[in-house]
Parts: sequence; C-alpha cells; structure tokens
Amino acid sequence: MAKTLPKRSENYSEWYNELIKRADLAENSAVRGCMVIKPYGFSIWEKMQRALDDMFKETGHVNAYFPLFIPKSFLSKEASHVEGFAKECAVVTHYRLKNDPNGGGVIVDPDAKLEEELIVRPTSETVIWSTYKNWIQSYRDLPLLINQWANVVRWEMRTRIFLRTTEFLWQEGHTAHATRNEALAETRQMLETYATFAQEWMAMPVLKGHKTANERFAGADDTLCIEAMMQDGKALQAGTSHFLGQNFAQAFDVKFQTKEGTLEYVWGTSWGASTRLMGALIMAHSDDDGLVLPPKLAPIQVVIIPIYRSDEQLAAIAEKVAELTKELKKLGISVKFDSSDANKPGWKFAEYELRGVPVRLAMGARDLENGTVEVARRDTKQKETVAIDGVVKYIADLLDDIQASIYQKAHTFRQENTHRVDDYTAFKQILDDKGGFILAHWDGTPETEERIKEETKATIRCIPFDAPHEEGRCILTGKPSSQRVVFARAY
Amino acid sequence: MAKTLPKRSENYSEWYNELIKRADLAENSAVRGCMVIKPYGFSIWEKMQRALDDMFKETGHVNAYFPLFIPKSFLSKEASHVEGFAKECAVVTHYRLKNDPNGGGVIVDPDAKLEEELIVRPTSETVIWSTYKNWIQSYRDLPLLINQWANVVRWEMRTRIFLRTTEFLWQEGHTAHATRNEALAETRQMLETYATFAQEWMAMPVLKGHKTANERFAGADDTLCIEAMMQDGKALQAGTSHFLGQNFAQAFDVKFQTKEGTLEYVWGTSWGASTRLMGALIMAHSDDDGLVLPPKLAPIQVVIIPIYRSDEQLAAIAEKVAELTKELKKLGISVKFDSSDANKPGWKFAEYELRGVPVRLAMGARDLENGTVEVARRDTKQKETVAIDGVVKYIADLLDDIQASIYQKAHTFRQENTHRVDDYTAFKQILDDKGGFILAHWDGTPETEERIKEETKATIRCIPFDAPHEEGRCILTGKPSSQRVVFARAY
Repeated sequence: MAKTLPKRSENYSEWYNELIKRADLAENSAVRGCMVIKPYGFSIWEKMQRALDDMFKETGHVNAYFPLFIPKSFLSKEASHVEGFAKECAVVTHYRLKNDPNGGGVIVDPDAKLEEELIVRPTSETVIWSTYKNWIQSYRDLPLLINQWANVVRWEMRTRIFLRTTEFLWQEGHTAHATRNEALAETRQMLETYATFAQEWMAMPVLKGHKTANERFAGADDTLCIEAMMQDGKALQAGTSHFLGQNFAQAFDVKFQTKEGTLEYVWGTSWGASTRLMGALIMAHSDDDGLVLPPKLAPIQVVIIPIYRSDEQLAAIAEKVAELTKELKKLGISVKFDSSDANKPGWKFAEYELRGVPVRLAMGARDLENGTVEVARRDTKQKETVAIDGVVKYIADLLDDIQASIYQKAHTFRQENTHRVDDYTAFKQILDDKGGFILAHWDGTPETEERIKEETKATIRCIPFDAPHEEGRCILTGKPSSQRVVFARAY
Repeated sequence: MAKTLPKRSENYSEWYNELIKRADLAENSAVRGCMVIKPYGFSIWEKMQRALDDMFKETGHVNAYFPLFIPKSFLSKEASHVEGFAKECAVVTHYRLKNDPNGGGVIVDPDAKLEEELIVRPTSETVIWSTYKNWIQSYRDLPLLINQWANVVRWEMRTRIFLRTTEFLWQEGHTAHATRNEALAETRQMLETYATFAQEWMAMPVLKGHKTANERFAGADDTLCIEAMMQDGKALQAGTSHFLGQNFAQAFDVKFQTKEGTLEYVWGTSWGASTRLMGALIMAHSDDDGLVLPPKLAPIQVVIIPIYRSDEQLAAIAEKVAELTKELKKLGISVKFDSSDANKPGWKFAEYELRGVPVRLAMGARDLENGTVEVARRDTKQKETVAIDGVVKYIADLLDDIQASIYQKAHTFRQENTHRVDDYTAFKQILDDKGGFILAHWDGTPETEERIKEETKATIRCIPFDAPHEEGRCILTGKPSSQRVVFARAY
C-alpha cells in the first residue's frame, strides 16, 4: 500500500509537491526549472485544451502557429514590453556544435555565431504583430481572431512545478480590431470565457476584475484577470486578458484603411491561460488522500474494481462489468475496469483515490447474487450499495452531482475566507492568521500598493468588475476611496 | 479575380511556393527558415493531428510532454546521435538581456552565461531516455508507450516551406520494451500506422521499406520509412519509424529487472511524422488551379455559392441552403455558405478551387424553381445538375468517391512513373528525362550508394518490405544482388 501523503494542515507545500509526484502528474526534469508532464497529468491537460479550444472556436477564433524564436530587435520595439521580459529570457547565440580540437568533447562552434541573437518566445506579441503588419491593409481584413497553442520560456529564478516553470505550455490569443470598443469587448469576452471554463469545467469559483497598473501585462493598457482561492487561502491568477490599445500596432506600424478611406492604427488584445491551471486544479480541490478531480476533466470518470476469490468469480464479475461499461460508454462516461491481480482491492482503492477518479465501483460475488454494486464517490468518500438495475442513471447523476458539489464546496470555502477589513492592524493580523481574500479600501496609488506589498506580502489581486460603490478610506493612508479592492497573498 | 498560378509543367517549384502563399497555407517568417502556419493551413494540420493522435491512442499510446531544452552533455552520450545532430542545432548560451550601459540598446547580459549550454531539441531521444531511466526498474514498468506533440529545431542551411524548415511541428513516439522482438514489432506497427494514415487520410500511396545504413536515423539500428511520389516524379519521405536497439538504453544506463530476476538493458523505438506532410499533401494532388484536398482532411468539405440578382432571391436561396446544411451537418459533413456580396460568384468559384474545397454547390433562382442544384467536384472539375431531393446522399457518396479517386489517380501516376532498369546509362537517362522511382539492383555497399548519389543525385529511398527475391547484378558495379531497391531523386 502506498505511503500516505503529507497533510495539508501540516505542510501545504510538501503536500502539493508529493501529490504531484505520487499521482504521476509531472516531475522536475534534468533541465533547471523545466518539467516533464507525465501521461496521467498530460491527459488532464488535454481535456482542458479540448474544452478551451472548443470555446475559442465557438467565439469565432482560429488557430495558427508562429515561430518559437524572436529576433532580439523585435522584443525591443515596444518599450515597456522589453522592460518586462528582457530580464528572464533564454537567448540563442549559436547554431552549431563541433568536436573540440583539443579533445574536450563537443563544444559550441565559435564560427557559428548568429549575427542577431534570437530570444526563445516568452510570449508572442512582437513576432505576431510583425506578421500582422503584412496581413492587415484594410478594414475588410479585420477583425483578425487568432489563437496559438505553444510552449513559452521565461527564465524564472524561483520555480515551482506547474505554477512557475521555466518552460510552460499555454495558449495565447492575439486579436486585431478596427475600433477601440471592439477590442475592449473582445478583451472582456475572453476573460468571461476563462471564467466560464474555470467555473464550469474546473469547478473553481473565480473573481473577475482589472489588475492595477503595477500588475499589468508589459505593453497593455489594461489587464483583466480571474483569481481563484487555493485551500491555503492564497490567491492564484488563473487567466488574463489584455487590452493592448494601439501599443503594438504603433511599435510595428500596423495601420489599416477605414471605410472612410483614412489610415489608422489597429487595436489589439491578447489573452492566455497555461499549464499553471493544472496547479490551480490540484490546489483547489484535492485532499490529504490525493487528487479530487471534477468529473468533466477526469481522464477516468469511473473505475470498477472486482472483489473475488476465484477465477470463476472474476469471470462472472467481468461479464456483468462488460455490460455495465457498454452502457456507461454510450453516455460518454469513461470507465476503467482494473482486474489486474498484481494488487489487492485495498491497494487499488487507495491508488484511485490518489489519482482522483470521481466514482469507484466495487463488485463482489455477493453483489452478483444480490444484483447490487457498491458505489463510492471520491469527493465526500460516501459509499452506497445500489441496485445494478438503474445504476447507469445513478452514476450519470452522481457525476453531475460531484461536479456541482466540488464547485459549491470551493465556493463556500472562499466565502468563509473572504474578509471585509477597514483597519491595517487587523488586515495584517488576518493575513497572518487566516489568509484568504481581504476586501479593503485603497487610495488608488502604486506607491501605497507597493508599500502594503512590502510590509505584508499581500498584493491587489484585482479591482472587481462588480464591486459596489462604497465611500471609505484607504487602509494604509486614510485617503478617500470609492470601492473595495481584493488583497491577498498569492502564488 | 485572382491571378493564375504558375503552371506545374513550367516551374514546379514556383507553383509550389505560390500555391502555399495564395491558398493561405503558410509563409516565411522574419526569422530565417522559420515559417508561420496560417489559419487555413493550420486547420488542415489539426485534422492530420487528430487522425494520427486517435490512431496512436487506439494502439495503446499515451501523450506526455518533455522539455524543449537538452543539456549539451546529454546530446553527446550517444556517439552517432551527436554526430548526426550537432551540426545543425540552436544553442542557448545566456538567460538574460540588459540595457547596454553604452547606449547600444538591449544586449545579451554577459553575466548571465549558462554553465552548461542548452540545445533546443532537434529530436528528444536523449532527454526522454534520461527520464526513462527513473521510470523503468522492472519488467512490470514495460512496455512504455509514449508520444509527444512538439516543436523541434534543426538549423538547416537550405530551407523550403513545410518540407525543410528550421523549426517544425511534429509528433515523436518513444517506446521502451523488454525484448528485442517486441521493439521490432512496435517499430513495424507504427510504420504501418503511418502508411495507413497516408493512404486512407491523405489519399497518398506509399512504399514501405527499410532505409539503407547511409540514410538511417543517427542512433538507430534500423530505420523503416514510407516514401511517396510527388507529381514531378521526386520522392518524399513521409514518416519514419526507428528500431533503436539498446543504443539509448546503454547511453543512459536504462536497465530493468526481468521476470527471472536478471538485469538487462531496455529495447527502444522512436517514430515521427511532421508538418512536412503538409508539403507532401500539396504536391501529391494539387493542380494548376490550386489545392486538391482529400475530403477527409479538408477543413471545408462543401461550399455553397448563391447566384442571385435580388435580395429576395438571396433570401429564398438562403432558406433552402439552411435546410440542406442542417442535413449535411447531421452526417458530419462541414459546409460553408458564402453569401458575401463583396465578391462575384466567378471570383468565389476560383477562390474555393484554389483552396481545394472538394465539392462546390451553386444555387440560383432557376434551380429553386426546378428543385435542382449544380454540384461540381474539385478533383475532376466535373459539374452536374442534381435534384435537391436526394442531394445529401449524392454529396456524401461523392465525397467518398473523391477520396478514392484522388488516391487512385496518384496510384496510377506512381505506376506509370516507376521503372525497372538494369542498365546504368538508361538509369541516368530516365532520371533526367522522366524522373520517378527506379527499381534497380544494388550490391548492398554504402560506397556504391554514395557514388550513384554523387553521379546522379538519386538516393536509395528504401529497400521495400515486399520486394520479390530476384537474382540480378548491381547497376553500377555488376556485383550480384538478390532484390531490387527503390532509387529516386528526393525532397
């Protein structure tokens, strides 16, 4: 039987790392900060990809592919963009290795130095806008609604598997529009798409809002975000959508002829979500026994484990299971029958709990006699003995129920850990004692935000879209404020 | 109306380049040798990916993801592997840019030099086998059947869009087995998978066989390949499957405990297909009017174009088209109704021919009266007026017929351009006059192969699996040979 995991209450960080390892999701590679996503982890990511990709296509977007490499000069064209990304990028300087004439093995060939260094893309605005320049002449070429699935590299000094890795997988949407309003609407639409995905697929409630100027994407006029609460009370940014104004159009001279015949700069947006969502998914729902996966993203939704003493018993169970599996698959439910004799049922129970399979069926000789099966749900660990007749419908409903329950549980947790605070001492106290989200007044200046961050490690996660107008005073400076913002310590 | 394409008979290479550009498939990027795959081209690639991925999963494979970067020392561990790839790789030497203190803009920060250089993966055997070492201890861990979809970089000196680009997209399977025979069977199985895909999806006949030692993958004991014939008579390698023996297991010390308790090296395979297939697809079927796509890979299978003089006529046609579209979509057929008034019907006809849409319907006022529709097939350009009643079935059958006809046409072309030759002068003559595949005897030595290549630019494309035993004499040296091999000039 597998060793138990560290407990969340004792060492949340260790619990996270061990869970990822033991549930076979991913591991650190030999290359600093780069991860290997293992098959089980990747199959969850594939489900996320498929769902997001379908949503992008439903909203009129198409996929394309742009180069991995960005000429150094491109990165420099948008001033705040290069400021934001130059400090953390992988630079290709040579294009060949050779045998060391002095016998030192294989070395970089000094004769194969590039005239201009290439940056491994940390994000693709520059290479894409340099391309859009050739694609856009007239208003008829707009809007351009393109997404790409790709790997990107940011040379992070402190890495954390799934949450902050040197290389990660993501999608990045890059759109071009004729008007400011259209671009603003697109920025908002894609943020809503991420929110829908987080809530309906990941079963993870999110707050939606604007980032402050300090936390904005380098090169954007506005950054919208969704923020989720993890079980340790910390916030996690789960997707961002940027209104780029005309910044990249100006940097790359992308103009279009309007219907009226004038020449204007194009308006842009970009938006992305990454394998970071895997970290969010794990930390939002899982428990001390392992993963808890929402059924919609579980690679295996139902596992069936036979309890038998003889080959005859196993054969009889297998026959019944085959019928059941057929019916479940008709409803699009994925099923695994684990009849291997390498491990005992108890070991299997623990293993599939660790892997977060939402529903487990156990069937033994007595069940066959009685026409029953034991059904256990992963999220609450409740077990019930159910008649085989009608169990298919029971399971389909149960999967829906689990999806909803996991969401509700996370939502309740967030409510319980969201605090309205008007006093800076209490603010610091709550951060240290309980964590969670703090709704507080802020005077709107970067300086105040910076000082609160330095003193408490809390940042403004977002200025919520739907925050009510409320007169108040900044928690630090006492200056007037007209709405609360969301503070938290964050991943 | 769009300009006409260059003719294949006059300038095949220009025709290829122009077609890719005009059909909006891809373009060269600002980064030397790297391409941008445009939305229409990418949607074809997505269909290829989906079909291949399903086939891999049906044969028991799972997807995973391994790092983009490979430490230089890893590449060196397998001697012939590094020999094959060191000359063409992108090398990351630094991890940061900074502002030039002398005002020269953004420069590479000399303080951010990596201790060990990183290679952008040209293929992933080394990084994957270094990982497998930790995943494999016992025979119970085998076989390991993993695939990854990824971008790779090979610093090619002469690039050609889709066919040979610095960065390309591909899938690479990497499997590990307990026995030599299992690994051999896997190597063969995956080659057969590629052949099935080429023939059933791409409608492209392929020869299957072994590469000669000269043409083998760097690090393999045997390379199997599929070879297709392009319309200019040149060969194109469309997929390879490598039997790696124990080479990478030895290089990375990957051993497993057998059932009997002994410790043995693991046996490996790897296999890949890339965006090169896009080039093959284009060159196998397309004509002087544009793309010809097999229906199974066409992003739009049916385009419907209204012919109208008034808004009332258009409305009446649109109503009929809506019914028809609904019925076609029920059968999984993708349909586009192009009712835009920006272009005339004639322009649209040419445009969708250029893009290779397999079936075009044209519907006018008279058709509505008569209950008919004009159906045109892209491959043969035949048109027919068909009764609306029953047209759905007619179109479904027509798509099947086009898929089969395109294959048959390519197959006939290959037969007509395959020559049995026993004389070296005739061999050279045929290569220069007609091209195509030449079945000839070869004495089995790398030296002879090399000399023929130097003198004629023809290489041995493969030693076919199913070549009959036949006594003969080498076309160059006159030495004895027991089977013919396939020579051709190749992409």
